[in-house]
Amino acid sequence: MRIAILGTGDVAQQLGTKLAAIGHQVQLGSRSHDHPSALAWAAKTGGDTSTFELVATWGEVVFNCTSGQHSLKALRLAGHAALDGKILIDVSNPLDFSNGFPPTLSIANTDSLGEQIQHSFPEAKVVKALNTVANHLMVDPGQVDGPASLPICGDDAEAKAKVSAWMTEWFGWEDVIDLGPIESARATEAWLLMWTRLYGALGTGNFHMAIVR
Amino acid sequence: MRIAILGTGDVAQQLGTKLAAIGHQVQLGSRSHDHPSALAWAAKTGGDTSTFELVATWGEVVFNCTSGQHSLKALRLAGHAALDGKILIDVSNPLDFSNGFPPTLSIANTDSLGEQIQHSFPEAKVVKALNTVANHLMVDPGQVDGPASLPICGDDAEAKAKVSAWMTEWFGWEDVIDLGPIESARATEAWLLMWTRLYGALGTGNFHMAIVR
Repeated sequence: MRIAILGTGDVAQQLGTKLAAIGHQVQLGSRSHDHPSALAWAAKTGGDTSTFELVATWGEVVFNCTSGQHSLKALRLAGHAALDGKILIDVSNPLDFSNGFPPTLSIANTDSLGEQIQHSFPEAKVVKALNTVANHLMVDPGQVDGPASLPICGDDAEAKAKVSAWMTEWFGWEDVIDLGPIESARATEAWLLMWTRLYGALGTGNFHMAIVR
Repeated sequence: MRIAILGTGDVAQQLGTKLAAIGHQVQLGSRSHDHPSALAWAAKTGGDTSTFELVATWGEVVFNCTSGQHSLKALRLAGHAALDGKILIDVSNPLDFSNGFPPTLSIANTDSLGEQIQHSFPEAKVVKALNTVANHLMVDPGQVDGPASLPICGDDAEAKAKVSAWMTEWFGWEDVIDLGPIESARATEAWLLMWTRLYGALGTGNFHMAIVR
């Protein structure tokens, strides 16, 4: 599958490396066509890199791995036409570190970044996923022994069913929970308030949320 | 131990019944000294009931099991003198159901009810605990097989150590995680955004959050 990843940071590279390793064509997108770390990643993995617009147009599926405060801008640069009818897997979190660690959320409680993205790009099928876990575990949850749950949400049932199956097939997630419509991103983004404090208390991001039932 | 429980609802009765069953003296507090469901509970369990002020004055430890929107008012009725120097275990959540289910939070992200309680009652040692789980599991997490984590937080290290030990001894919690200062109530209260959506998606509150590491 042709997979476009918006972003060039750790999350983007981690997902891109894994998806290329299991046989997908992967391109990382950024504001420029020659972002240094994206070029380095492409040389290492056999992937490619270009602008937000070109990679999103090329991709059959699009991941949003940009940082939360830049996601809407990055998606506008990708453009409505490039996203039309496509599944957009939103991994971003609206973290605000302006007062240090732990962060607050720049959007919370009665709204979410996932909702803002879906409302701004109604032609895309937004599925929020993978934003609840450290990036090394996104692509290989089995690195921590024991149960692990992945809550996803979105307004399009067919898109969620596909993403749920991909999470299992691509990365090994065995417990994907459909939380409901994209409004449920309020819950998965608010989990970052817990995640960041657990990171501080435990001294590691090497942990899973499991919903044990 | 003399344990005062502010509130007469399901959470208060569940905790009161368990604590009485394992040998503690328990009183439920409400606005009046003759609240019908508290009287019925007392007759059934051998506990007692009275006003917020009288039970809080009598108790060595105080649980706040009032609903979030009434907690500060209930604690003002209990009074500063009654709470002076005592551990106040805050089980409440600032849930706002005014727009239906799932609720939003009336305090969120940059503040929390736990913090507001600690700031309003600086003479008490507030420890936020048990607000992350259905009331039947608060007192017996083993009802669901598998790992279960209980995040707690508060500003007083000694009070947290005591509450952590009590959670294990009284109720059987094996993984109590100290998230940090009372500010971390922002995380455990925001968990309710996830909990309520999981309740909707799974059709049951019979589940645990486990932090698997």
